[in-house]
Amino acid sequence: MSFEAFEPGYKIAVVGAGAVGCYYGGKLARNGGNVHFLMRSDLAAVRKQGLHIRSQDGGFHLERVNAHASTEEIGPCDLVIVALKTTSNPALDALIPPLLKENTAVLTLQNGLGNEEFLAGRFGTQRIMGGLCFVCLNRTAPGVIEHYGYGTLSIGEFGRASQERTRRIVEDFAATGITTRLVENLATERWRKLVWNVPFNGLSIAGGGITTDLILADEGLHKLTRNLMAEVMAAAGNEGHVIPHEFIEEQVRRTLKMGAYKPSSLIDYLDGREVEVESIWGEPYRRGLASGTEMGRMEALYYLLKKLTPPGMVRHR
Amino acid sequence: MSFEAFEPGYKIAVVGAGAVGCYYGGKLARNGGNVHFLMRSDLAAVRKQGLHIRSQDGGFHLERVNAHASTEEIGPCDLVIVALKTTSNPALDALIPPLLKENTAVLTLQNGLGNEEFLAGRFGTQRIMGGLCFVCLNRTAPGVIEHYGYGTLSIGEFGRASQERTRRIVEDFAATGITTRLVENLATERWRKLVWNVPFNGLSIAGGGITTDLILADEGLHKLTRNLMAEVMAAAGNEGHVIPHEFIEEQVRRTLKMGAYKPSSLIDYLDGREVEVESIWGEPYRRGLASGTEMGRMEALYYLLKKLTPPGMVRHR
Repeated sequence: MSFEAFEPGYKIAVVGAGAVGCYYGGKLARNGGNVHFLMRSDLAAVRKQGLHIRSQDGGFHLERVNAHASTEEIGPCDLVIVALKTTSNPALDALIPPLLKENTAVLTLQNGLGNEEFLAGRFGTQRIMGGLCFVCLNRTAPGVIEHYGYGTLSIGEFGRASQERTRRIVEDFAATGITTRLVENLATERWRKLVWNVPFNGLSIAGGGITTDLILADEGLHKLTRNLMAEVMAAAGNEGHVIPHEFIEEQVRRTLKMGAYKPSSLIDYLDGREVEVESIWGEPYRRGLASGTEMGRMEALYYLLKKLTPPGMVRHR
Repeated sequence: MSFEAFEPGYKIAVVGAGAVGCYYGGKLARNGGNVHFLMRSDLAAVRKQGLHIRSQDGGFHLERVNAHASTEEIGPCDLVIVALKTTSNPALDALIPPLLKENTAVLTLQNGLGNEEFLAGRFGTQRIMGGLCFVCLNRTAPGVIEHYGYGTLSIGEFGRASQERTRRIVEDFAATGITTRLVENLATERWRKLVWNVPFNGLSIAGGGITTDLILADEGLHKLTRNLMAEVMAAAGNEGHVIPHEFIEEQVRRTLKMGAYKPSSLIDYLDGREVEVESIWGEPYRRGLASGTEMGRMEALYYLLKKLTPPGMVRHR
């Protein structure tokens, strides 16, 4: 299997054209990328009116979008970007194979832990890359993505050092104007991101639907946030991903500057969409238990969130 | 200070005439007890129409009730029953002194930990007794108490063996038809009750307003319930109150039989009343921390409940 850098005009599929898929895929397409979107409910709207990215940092409109109803219709690609909600991962078993040829790379931009492992187990370890999105997005209508802020990407190989293809993909994202970082230890980066997501995404829901500023302004939840971060860091450390203790202080400081921020899981929850409970809380909790880490706070938060956000729930606002 | 058994016709004050105070005080009064109720919002209604206790086990109506607007009006008593919500404990500083003479006993029927200590610090250790109520009650209108089930009492001295007065009070409650148990280690009993209250009262609120059967039917919350019980038992053990591990299984079995039960804190929460967060979760959490007990699940639950049920909250149903 060869993984040289892609030829010019290499073909890209975006599987899971929600907010993340449309935003990052749309950026590549706008910059001349040969991007093909798998769409379901938004297909007709996007074929008719294209893709609208609204943003204070400069939104844009893609009039003509390669929107497809199936991955068979898209056919084999050089790069598959997986941006499906992790709650829909089982669907990937059927969606991915039509997109693969010998050297197709599969880049998951999904949240939490376990997604690279899931894809590697099915489609081969060497294909797999992962990306972490630090962004606040919402799909507000069919084909309409609202970008509220941030947007940086961190991209790396799954379980190995960066390759020529990694640098190429990082360059291509960077060329669209997105701050993109190549990371040499993807697993450590995933854990570092969870240090933030576990408390803030979780407490924003379990705390009654509150923004990050209210979590930090509450003395008890502020303390719980720091202690949850320490649990996640201990679990990471027990898997060999050492995160220095000062990271907690940095995260708190950074979050205070963000103001009344709605974590992505809170947006999902308030909009009645499924919350990615297993990849953000379930998998780190199980990994922590497996390595003998004390995970009491994480356990409480995980099981409460699982109950509060049942699969397939639709809440009425 | 002498604490002989009370003379016949001994005078009793009930401070905090909510559901618990009216139910237990009403039982004593109906049986000929010389009971005086401190009332606030219900005073006019009770003076006019008396006290209604509704129950499937046989309700009753007290036509004439000694209802008072102040403890000065009641004056010195032989026994003071404290049934105020623990969230109003600071009010006791002013309410109790007019009721005291040299050998007045003070029996708190309040929930959780720390109430005997609170009263002992202010009014003298030797006066203090405690009672645990296993009952499901709700005040549904001024002067109207709904009794949904259970009702047993466990009564003991604070920090010492039972006295003649303890036996007398136990007998007098038993004579009203209430199953009443004299306990020789009140503190252990308080911890044992918390083994149930901490998970069930807490998760019924934090889990989204659910009854105990739904907590146990949910695989994650069921596991969390047992692990929270183990944390409470570890904290109790570190204070010398050994509760055998089988207690967890017993509590789960007992609760399964209760069906769709609403813990008292859930009723408070749903009715928009303050929840007794400090005495049920805060104090045991702090005691556990002080004795070096690992209390991660308790910490998460405590701080979430504190945020979800702010003091003075009034929710609209």
